[in-house]
Amino acid sequence: LDYQHVQVPFEITLWIMLASLAKIGFHLYNKLPSVVPESCLLIFVGLIMGGIIYGLNDRSPPVMDSDIFFLYLLPPIVLDAGYFMPSRPFFENIGTILLYAVVGTIWNVFGIGFSLYGICQVKSFRLQDVSLLHNLLFGSLIAAVDPVAVLAVFEEIHVNEKLHILVFGESLLNDAVTVVLYKLFRSFCEMPTIKSVDVFAGIGKFFVVGLGGVLVGLSFGFTAAFTTRFTKDIRVIEPLFVFLYSYLSYLTAEMFHLSGIVAIISCAMGMKRYVEANISLKSHTTVKYFMKMWSSVSDTLIFIFLGVSTIGENHEWNWPYICFTVIFCLVWRALGVLVLTFFVNRFHVNTITSKDQFIIAYGGLRGAICFSLVFLLPDFHRKKLFIAATTVVILFTVFVQGMTIRPLVDLLAVKRKRESAPTVGEQIHIRFLDHLLAGIEDISGHWGQYYWKDKLEYFNSKYLQKILLREYDQPKSSIVLLYEKLERKHAMELAQAGQLGHGLAHPSFLCSAFLCSSSDRTVITDQKLEDTPNPDVLDNMQEILARNLYRIRRTGPAYNRHTLPGDSEPAERAKEILILRHKSL
Amino acid sequence: LDYQHVQVPFEITLWIMLASLAKIGFHLYNKLPSVVPESCLLIFVGLIMGGIIYGLNDRSPPVMDSDIFFLYLLPPIVLDAGYFMPSRPFFENIGTILLYAVVGTIWNVFGIGFSLYGICQVKSFRLQDVSLLHNLLFGSLIAAVDPVAVLAVFEEIHVNEKLHILVFGESLLNDAVTVVLYKLFRSFCEMPTIKSVDVFAGIGKFFVVGLGGVLVGLSFGFTAAFTTRFTKDIRVIEPLFVFLYSYLSYLTAEMFHLSGIVAIISCAMGMKRYVEANISLKSHTTVKYFMKMWSSVSDTLIFIFLGVSTIGENHEWNWPYICFTVIFCLVWRALGVLVLTFFVNRFHVNTITSKDQFIIAYGGLRGAICFSLVFLLPDFHRKKLFIAATTVVILFTVFVQGMTIRPLVDLLAVKRKRESAPTVGEQIHIRFLDHLLAGIEDISGHWGQYYWKDKLEYFNSKYLQKILLREYDQPKSSIVLLYEKLERKHAMELAQAGQLGHGLAHPSFLCSAFLCSSSDRTVITDQKLEDTPNPDVLDNMQEILARNLYRIRRTGPAYNRHTLPGDSEPAERAKEILILRHKSL
Repeated sequence: LDYQHVQVPFEITLWIMLASLAKIGFHLYNKLPSVVPESCLLIFVGLIMGGIIYGLNDRSPPVMDSDIFFLYLLPPIVLDAGYFMPSRPFFENIGTILLYAVVGTIWNVFGIGFSLYGICQVKSFRLQDVSLLHNLLFGSLIAAVDPVAVLAVFEEIHVNEKLHILVFGESLLNDAVTVVLYKLFRSFCEMPTIKSVDVFAGIGKFFVVGLGGVLVGLSFGFTAAFTTRFTKDIRVIEPLFVFLYSYLSYLTAEMFHLSGIVAIISCAMGMKRYVEANISLKSHTTVKYFMKMWSSVSDTLIFIFLGVSTIGENHEWNWPYICFTVIFCLVWRALGVLVLTFFVNRFHVNTITSKDQFIIAYGGLRGAICFSLVFLLPDFHRKKLFIAATTVVILFTVFVQGMTIRPLVDLLAVKRKRESAPTVGEQIHIRFLDHLLAGIEDISGHWGQYYWKDKLEYFNSKYLQKILLREYDQPKSSIVLLYEKLERKHAMELAQAGQLGHGLAHPSFLCSAFLCSSSDRTVITDQKLEDTPNPDVLDNMQEILARNLYRIRRTGPAYNRHTLPGDSEPAERAKEILILRHKSL
Repeated sequence: LDYQHVQVPFEITLWIMLASLAKIGFHLYNKLPSVVPESCLLIFVGLIMGGIIYGLNDRSPPVMDSDIFFLYLLPPIVLDAGYFMPSRPFFENIGTILLYAVVGTIWNVFGIGFSLYGICQVKSFRLQDVSLLHNLLFGSLIAAVDPVAVLAVFEEIHVNEKLHILVFGESLLNDAVTVVLYKLFRSFCEMPTIKSVDVFAGIGKFFVVGLGGVLVGLSFGFTAAFTTRFTKDIRVIEPLFVFLYSYLSYLTAEMFHLSGIVAIISCAMGMKRYVEANISLKSHTTVKYFMKMWSSVSDTLIFIFLGVSTIGENHEWNWPYICFTVIFCLVWRALGVLVLTFFVNRFHVNTITSKDQFIIAYGGLRGAICFSLVFLLPDFHRKKLFIAATTVVILFTVFVQGMTIRPLVDLLAVKRKRESAPTVGEQIHIRFLDHLLAGIEDISGHWGQYYWKDKLEYFNSKYLQKILLREYDQPKSSIVLLYEKLERKHAMELAQAGQLGHGLAHPSFLCSAFLCSSSDRTVITDQKLEDTPNPDVLDNMQEILARNLYRIRRTGPAYNRHTLPGDSEPAERAKEILILRHKSL
């Protein structure tokens, strides 16, 4: 037996296996996940495992290594979040999100820090040796809402899109603020005296850390898009680039002490559009699937490790400090949301209701990021108290808030996510309004979001697409694109209506219709189709489509390590196009 | 700047990135890969990089760590090879493959070892200090054909399936022999005296190492299949199990000093059939894609590292020893193939032609496995000579043989791989002959391959499928399955014929036809379809299909981390089945 030799990969594989099996186990009983969030169950599994390890070895089980967390477990989750981020609601609410993320987090840090310092002054609590700076440092790590915990809970309660993006966006973007404040206070703790210059330098750092992250992310994202222009002959390694470049952006940002989370999100959002257009459909399925899989495994491991690390002798218990930490976390967040929303609502037509405000305040869950940060603290005599307080806050928010938020959402009748996707009619109106508002903003000289969106779109089609896309056609006008979209939608409608109305149709067209529907990834798949098309339009469409669309692509026999079955032969397709053209003439 | 912190993941990511970019680079110029095999180009890139590192640091660049090679780079390639192994030709030729792998490898080891010992006796070569045991040890590591190198070359020359599987199967299965002989001779080198008991124990080990590997692999494979029965609610982690269990089987085998390669191949071949039936189509695409991607990257890294490691001061040059090593490798392999094939041809109707024999002998490429093994040798004064000889043999086989094999195959007009898949007619005949031969063998009392295949199929449908498959219907007879297959094939034919013959068809049926064709993974996609169906059969089929097949599945809007868009709703489908049944009554 030679265990030493294979120990590292063997243990890693076993941990991942344990996590996956735990996940399967929960889903075997359908009732369990609908009552208790998965994160709670996983922490519970972790607690049991930690207890077993503690009982067997009679010493504290190993705590989750901060390096492992920040370098290996966090990036997949953030990448997944960034890649699947619904960009429209995100950019529509970017102002509010930034306000919550920056001002709200600073508010919480100082609020919690100062009020805990106040508690420390009460003599009977025996906490007078905890200085103001230490309290602020603690505040800076406990104030930040955790994206992993928020995602785990909010994904299951299906609140409306705006509410979701407000909480989730805040949890992602506050990373820059947390990084700066945490590092600032930690360096202040080690300095003998603090000059006012240092404070101003700290404020300047906000912008460097945040905007630097965005820059690093975007540059890696565009490089990734550019690289996928040249992968036509080796489709199998296409998904790799998506992962490699995003990870490099994260690591590079971390290397320069910028915000890695912001970097990887910018990278994912920047490259998504171009990469999707360049890579094959199968590569894209693989990218999406693997991202989900990886983030799901990471997230499971994080919660299990969180449970395991809780057990042990790392804690110093002090009732008043710990209780007041929990209370202040709740109170300051609630106050912050109230005050900030008051200002937000004054400048917006589409206001945030008081129910939404309650859910935003209540959804401020803490998680593994706080936990990793508290273990990274320099050693000082009260570190164990901070660890205990952080653990309690995390467990309280994940268990108590996480388990009660679903019933509360039901009770308050918070506006839910709209289950059906917008119809084509709605989409046309939205597009029309966007154009109209961009025009109004341009004429009135107000540089609002529609103006910038229009400019960005222009810049994109004029320059970026030419550089980053492989098969770049002339930029089509919106109206042509919309026509194509409608055409495909009707093809699908007909395909479905035929089932019910027994209409006779040209077979090639129907196959093509199905082909189109499966090749069009973003638009059609999300739409509910009507069951009753107009027969006149039907005949007309039928003819148009039969003339213009191409037959189904088939796969040839192939056994090669560098290609997958299904890469279509362009020569055959070109011939087909020729034949169809010839016929129509 | 904090490089230390992110060094490990950063450098790994950069190496992978370099490998992928090198791959893209080669494929940008279409002419290059058709003349020079990719493996040569990659070694060349490695040589250049090694030269740069050597030039900058003025010391030998780091050699490829054997642990990294055996634990991280080799498993993905072998997994890919095992998973995509064409099982029919493999099991049809298993006897011949085993003969080459076991007897052939032993023949080569002793042949090369003894004749090199003879060379060492020539006084003018100054090699008298190399003992017989050391020569045999060297023989055991240089004799084995390398699966990575063989795959890289044979995938591109498209020889006929039998020839391919003979060389490739041998390269995979000789691992058990190599492991045993290498470890045996290494332990003999360290023993003071060798008893005849030890030699017999060595022979017994063959069976333990080989069969143990098969057992470990199969048990993990069946566990994997069993696990995927329960992943219905969490599709995203399905692909994970395929990778985790295969890797665990490899590590477990390595831990017990069994053959890891044999284990992972058995695991992949054992689970493939059941896992494919249990997991969703998208999961399966991801599994296939990721396997290809991973093995492709591993293989690229191996060749680059091979190049990098060649540069440096690890070599001791001795012209006679190195030249004679290359000559003996070629001669003994050629002799071995000739002699073994003589016996094989006496017992088979379908003989191996002399052209095939030449390609088998010539295709015995050496690669990274020898290279890693030679670095694992215990330190003794002639180790550097062995390293130099191994490097030369690898470079000679990969460059000279690898680059000339394609012109030779053209020149000799070796039978090529059949490009088109067998037609349904051929398939029916093959199936019929299998049954017939199984019956003949049963009656005549001869337990040949058909008899065992039939028994295994019976055992599979009677017991294994019930345990391992999620949706297990009653075992259907072959004829029903064949009927279903034909039905689908006709559906596709019609779909295509409609394009050309303008036949009118029921639309729902055509969509269903396309659906079937895309849901049937193994059979239809490989077949060339005829363009001229009989109109009477067409009408008939049309009616049958329109009544029996279901409409296309659509995806609903979903934004959730644990599900992907596209998991169909079973409720709707059940309703549809009900409606169709109702109509047909």
